[in-house]
Amino acid sequence: MNILLTIAYDGTNYAGWQRQENAVAVQEKLEDALSILLSRDVTVRAASRTDAGVHALGQCAAFFAPDLKIPLDKFPTVLTSLLPEDISVTAAKIVPDEFNPRFNALKKTYIYNIYNAPHPNPLLSRYSAFMPHMLDISAMQKAAEYFIGKHDFAAFCATGSNAKTTVREIFACEISNQPNGLISLTITGNAFLYNMVRIIAGTVVYAGLGKIPPEKIPQIIASKNRTSAGKTMPSQGLVLTEVVYYN
Amino acid sequence: MNILLTIAYDGTNYAGWQRQENAVAVQEKLEDALSILLSRDVTVRAASRTDAGVHALGQCAAFFAPDLKIPLDKFPTVLTSLLPEDISVTAAKIVPDEFNPRFNALKKTYIYNIYNAPHPNPLLSRYSAFMPHMLDISAMQKAAEYFIGKHDFAAFCATGSNAKTTVREIFACEISNQPNGLISLTITGNAFLYNMVRIIAGTVVYAGLGKIPPEKIPQIIASKNRTSAGKTMPSQGLVLTEVVYYN
Repeated sequence: MNILLTIAYDGTNYAGWQRQENAVAVQEKLEDALSILLSRDVTVRAASRTDAGVHALGQCAAFFAPDLKIPLDKFPTVLTSLLPEDISVTAAKIVPDEFNPRFNALKKTYIYNIYNAPHPNPLLSRYSAFMPHMLDISAMQKAAEYFIGKHDFAAFCATGSNAKTTVREIFACEISNQPNGLISLTITGNAFLYNMVRIIAGTVVYAGLGKIPPEKIPQIIASKNRTSAGKTMPSQGLVLTEVVYYN
Repeated sequence: MNILLTIAYDGTNYAGWQRQENAVAVQEKLEDALSILLSRDVTVRAASRTDAGVHALGQCAAFFAPDLKIPLDKFPTVLTSLLPEDISVTAAKIVPDEFNPRFNALKKTYIYNIYNAPHPNPLLSRYSAFMPHMLDISAMQKAAEYFIGKHDFAAFCATGSNAKTTVREIFACEISNQPNGLISLTITGNAFLYNMVRIIAGTVVYAGLGKIPPEKIPQIIASKNRTSAGKTMPSQGLVLTEVVYYN
């Protein structure tokens, strides 16, 4: 049977989701724990290959198992007990055999957190980008709205991507002030190009710094030129919060 | 002159505030940075000697300097640049020579954070205690209110304390639900005994678990007996948020 897990992790100490040589990845830790539990080699397929340092609250990954000796409702707790403290499995459910966490994803939500204050806050720095220069929230909000819709996001894709098409659809993109002082960009789309959220965040930050007027965003999108967009924001501010599937 | 600093730190990697042999303390890191900046040995006096693993957003500490070559408004940024990433100085001001951050403190506020959910959240675990058993928030709120007032808190003091009196005054004590899923106990008092906030938090948690009725709190206080109160909650949930002085 095909089992879908929901996974949360602090990405600080990992070289990203995807298993690789010479560096520790979240996938490796999860597969190691599953292999112990099931007494056989287990490979997982994830919804998103998050980059080094990127966090997750709602990553999804599936694996095949002939049967589960542990009751499904106890499975997240037992599996979490075999994982390092910075990785936690929060849900497990049986899905059809043909279900693929990446290709069946209907939409994904990411949050990019910015701490905008004169001095850094060590209790927030692990999960946000620190920006001491005052940001104009209303300009950022205006800039964010222009990303909503179906666009060719070639200007917001890191070089080295081998995506067949750079057209993606953004369903929601907004800026909010959190009570703890964070500014959060919440973005939901059908899929994302390589580094797309971090480049969009960098472009929204440029609007907040007055480096570009928000009204120029459609032109930047239309340019399909990476150099017209803002810089790629650092990985520690990014959290994959949710992956939504058809029920 | 006497300079008062406001300091924020992630206490995870420190053996507490106070400088000690064979372990790294926040005080040592701050004094080292100040000594470099002022080219002389510097000793700081803090408002609170936070324990190993306890965090701070508003710790206060003062030091004497013959003069400051760096402008006071730039001082926090320059000093922070010499500190590890988990310590940040957020303010600096000149205070009278007789000012002592500990004895002049009018009140202090601590927050104790609890993550109450079926599975741990790695993005919150560094700054909260994880409790998978469902807590009754309204029982916790009722329990918290009984701590307000001037009481002998002998029952809420770890053994090994050498305080002259165990009478303390609590000005505010309340439970709130944070948007990120944390339950926070916010407590303000004139001063606190050794481990007092963590034992009060443990007792409020016992009320939340149904282990003691909230109405029993006055009796527990009156007992002056450590064994009638709840257990000491772990250090990582505690944050010293503010120290208030006469202006």
